[in-house]
Amino acid sequence: MKEFDLIRSFFLPLAEGRAEAGDFVNDGAVLSVPDGKELVVSSDTLNADIHFFADQPAATIAKKALRSNLSDILSMGARPYCYQLCLALPEVDEPWLRAFTAGLAEDQKLYNLFCCGGDTTSIRGHVSISITMFGLVNKGGSLSRAKARAGDAILLSGSVGDAYCGLQGLREVISDVPEFCRARYFVPEPPVAILPLFEQQKAHIHAAMDISDGLIADLGHMAAASNLRAIISLGDIRYSAAVEQLLACNSVSPHELLSGGDDYQLLLSVAADQAETIIKLAHEKNIQLQKVGNFEAGAAGVQVMDENGSPVTFNQAGWQHF
Amino acid sequence: MKEFDLIRSFFLPLAEGRAEAGDFVNDGAVLSVPDGKELVVSSDTLNADIHFFADQPAATIAKKALRSNLSDILSMGARPYCYQLCLALPEVDEPWLRAFTAGLAEDQKLYNLFCCGGDTTSIRGHVSISITMFGLVNKGGSLSRAKARAGDAILLSGSVGDAYCGLQGLREVISDVPEFCRARYFVPEPPVAILPLFEQQKAHIHAAMDISDGLIADLGHMAAASNLRAIISLGDIRYSAAVEQLLACNSVSPHELLSGGDDYQLLLSVAADQAETIIKLAHEKNIQLQKVGNFEAGAAGVQVMDENGSPVTFNQAGWQHF
Repeated sequence: MKEFDLIRSFFLPLAEGRAEAGDFVNDGAVLSVPDGKELVVSSDTLNADIHFFADQPAATIAKKALRSNLSDILSMGARPYCYQLCLALPEVDEPWLRAFTAGLAEDQKLYNLFCCGGDTTSIRGHVSISITMFGLVNKGGSLSRAKARAGDAILLSGSVGDAYCGLQGLREVISDVPEFCRARYFVPEPPVAILPLFEQQKAHIHAAMDISDGLIADLGHMAAASNLRAIISLGDIRYSAAVEQLLACNSVSPHELLSGGDDYQLLLSVAADQAETIIKLAHEKNIQLQKVGNFEAGAAGVQVMDENGSPVTFNQAGWQHF
Repeated sequence: MKEFDLIRSFFLPLAEGRAEAGDFVNDGAVLSVPDGKELVVSSDTLNADIHFFADQPAATIAKKALRSNLSDILSMGARPYCYQLCLALPEVDEPWLRAFTAGLAEDQKLYNLFCCGGDTTSIRGHVSISITMFGLVNKGGSLSRAKARAGDAILLSGSVGDAYCGLQGLREVISDVPEFCRARYFVPEPPVAILPLFEQQKAHIHAAMDISDGLIADLGHMAAASNLRAIISLGDIRYSAAVEQLLACNSVSPHELLSGGDDYQLLLSVAADQAETIIKLAHEKNIQLQKVGNFEAGAAGVQVMDENGSPVTFNQAGWQHF
């Protein structure tokens, strides 16, 4: 199957007939940004055997590629709009492509997205997927990780460490890992339903970012960008039932759970006196938020406290590519 | 060197302090599209040993990656604005990265671009570069390849086949290839200075596209999209002096020159009675345009005529990835 047949068969349906994509006839898409809106743009690359297992189900690879971008768009407070897909393939494997594009199509429905273009190329080596995603946000209304304030409560969506445990299970480093964790590693669940809350509570949600390289590492970036000290307390963190089970058998440590990547959850820095309200409102939308700490004035960084309130030293703080 | 140090050292300077990039602090860029404008978006991936030689100078790889997108943006009639860079690297080679980013910086100056974000990842295998580029165009004013009209003259910018000969020289398939051709293969020269002419002559320039997979193949796409028959005449096509020299020694055939890729020039379909005017106005901006044929009503496709006006059969029509 040739490049243009590939595009017609597999990728054109992902444009969903949207005018912006122009049936992929032209060299580019044309995006019209409504008055009063801005465009948030984010890119993520996923490479075989680095970001995913080459032999994992292709639909899960597609969803991970899309959702890793989705959590970035979300963390900026923007509504998902559309995306460009750059897919580098060592060969044309039609069943794989069928499953991959079916995964994209499912998530497009779920998140109200469409594919506005991209590039399909041959590569020597392994599959590489780069997605550039677009979101729309009210002008001047995008969230930043740099605007946390001293005294803010630090809220975490969902739970951390699930995907890390899933990965360690797949690698056979940890045994008896619940299926829930493997599923979270394959397909993250960024909390998209939180968007209306962002708009409604914008006066109180000062900063946001997604966590993909590990809670401590990413919180460190928020602390550095906001020039504040984040204090988090191990005793306050609630994990998923699946992870609690692994903790109970000492199969994994809190240290690992807070340093492992692939969470694709959100960190929010909110006015302390509004934290409970925001948690309650989120709960009404079936989104779990938990308070994991506070920001204080002080040397930028993250201080982790144990159950007794004593400082804990973290050696490794997140996934590093090189 | 770690990922975030890499970003700070090599990529952050490419943001040129632009507000849209926000110093790469956040998960995404924020693009504000001025009233009355639309955003043209195009992506191109370049993979080592497919789109470029892994050992060619890194600055030329960077420029090729940028300019292959630039010719897409240009073909839509849009002004280059900024780009996202996804760079997948098998290892951190600092001298290579220094040269690569220096190449990007040079072209940013030349084309008035900046880098608004992206992703840097590790890959098993070879370097892969995906760029998503943004251009601004007047609302409703983007050019399409689908709007050629019967009777239009087909104009070509610059010349074709230079990069093809350069590539064949580098592969040692053709000997005595002039340096000019190799330089064109390494670094294409999309005719950006044509943009004001697009705006000024928009009533007469009906369709445009860039040629990257070979003149005949790409003209075939324009013909198919516009549902017209393109007639081109081998006798009318003027090549560069370097290519004329190779033609004179029978080192290369017109057939190859019109099927080889990497030209990154433009094809325009313009009102026949305005063709001479447009060619003259372009010439005043130091852009060479030549008339290479006409569109006619008829079965969609490309018909090539030889010097005697007899139809020529083309077997292969352009670069295919798979």
